[in-house]
Amino acid sequence: MQRWKLTLEYDGRPYVGWQRQDNGPSIQAALETAIQQFCGETVRVQAAGRTDAGVHALGQVAHADIARPSAAKAVVNALNAHLQPQPIAVLCAEPVPRNFEARFSCIGRRYRYRIVNRRAPLTHEAGLAWQIGTALDAPAMQAAARHLVGRHDFTSFRAAACQAQSPVKTLDTLNVSRRGAAIEIEASARSFLHHQVRNIVGSLMLVGTGKWSPEDVARARDALDRRAAGPTAPSEGLYFVAAAYPNS
Amino acid sequence: MQRWKLTLEYDGRPYVGWQRQDNGPSIQAALETAIQQFCGETVRVQAAGRTDAGVHALGQVAHADIARPSAAKAVVNALNAHLQPQPIAVLCAEPVPRNFEARFSCIGRRYRYRIVNRRAPLTHEAGLAWQIGTALDAPAMQAAARHLVGRHDFTSFRAAACQAQSPVKTLDTLNVSRRGAAIEIEASARSFLHHQVRNIVGSLMLVGTGKWSPEDVARARDALDRRAAGPTAPSEGLYFVAAAYPNS
Repeated sequence: MQRWKLTLEYDGRPYVGWQRQDNGPSIQAALETAIQQFCGETVRVQAAGRTDAGVHALGQVAHADIARPSAAKAVVNALNAHLQPQPIAVLCAEPVPRNFEARFSCIGRRYRYRIVNRRAPLTHEAGLAWQIGTALDAPAMQAAARHLVGRHDFTSFRAAACQAQSPVKTLDTLNVSRRGAAIEIEASARSFLHHQVRNIVGSLMLVGTGKWSPEDVARARDALDRRAAGPTAPSEGLYFVAAAYPNS
Repeated sequence: MQRWKLTLEYDGRPYVGWQRQDNGPSIQAALETAIQQFCGETVRVQAAGRTDAGVHALGQVAHADIARPSAAKAVVNALNAHLQPQPIAVLCAEPVPRNFEARFSCIGRRYRYRIVNRRAPLTHEAGLAWQIGTALDAPAMQAAARHLVGRHDFTSFRAAACQAQSPVKTLDTLNVSRRGAAIEIEASARSFLHHQVRNIVGSLMLVGTGKWSPEDVARARDALDRRAAGPTAPSEGLYFVAAAYPNS
């Protein structure tokens, strides 16, 4: 039995999310089916970040135990062949020790949120970014972001359904950058609360439009009340970019 | 009657190409229908670049004559409303003099060709880039590209169906750049032959994989024979980026 670390890219549009659910196709189920077709084994895969419906991944990490002896290249090629034509791809497969856990061994997670700031609707990026017609002030959003970096009680940016034991998290980076009409917000932390990135982006959006000052984000943070912060940004702009592990 | 310059973005996947055809939906027909719905007028639109089936645009330029008096913002918003949910967006509408012709006044065209150089299939970029599994040597491709910049007889890179009067064109830039797995080839010229960019990319690909040396591209160019050059790269990686006009 070999434990494999799998690095995955996927388009979240057709899925109910990472996690297997009764109400529609999930990335987890698609991957487990592909593994079953490859080696005939029924496995349960676990991921670093259980992305919600419509959320994408550029570098999700999952692990799976497979008995059939295989080279890494064969695992990648076979899983991709079985996953096609679904928009899920295995970018990399690495053999890892049995104590590696995609979720619990992870010491760093990075998300990107993509906004296209223009009045015109999206074409090839529809479902892959949040289109906002009002002109956004990216430097003001960056100034607001500084109030959220570091160790804070993020109760104001936490979904009601969040199952984390504590609302206290350390946000390592929160960077806002603009390139033409595209505004990208990069967030990294050891771990995140449920909807934390999307709730932060919703508040930064209020700063970008001028409805809020950057200091209003600090006030929302200190209120420790979800109702004090901005709306939840839509899932379509969110990408799970990378997961970090010790010694890698 | 006002002539309008329209700057368009579109996803080429669902279309038979820019030009109105009997065998399926075209961008031209979609735009003409949207104008008809907006102002009740039957117009013919003309574009700077008549993109083929599956080719995308980030900044296509078209012109249309519209009798109904309107502000530029109203033209953009109304056309976008009528175009939805099709993946075509009007980014900008500008009133122009009656002698402006999107196609014949154009003095510069820029295309981008996007390759994703990795073994794994594409997910959210499926149909939006050419996935090549073999490792490509981008600096060698750039060295080969230098042989095509300038004024040359491009017969070897010209589609049989090409209707241009002369195969002699001046390629102003041909740049190959890599960023991670993405390789982008930017090409600009006053005008291009039919399939010229895709045929050039097919030859650069042969250099990238090591089958050809950069000098083989010069030899293919000098052969003045389509059969001497590489294959036609697929349409899905090609984007019409921008069109330039005098005094703009």
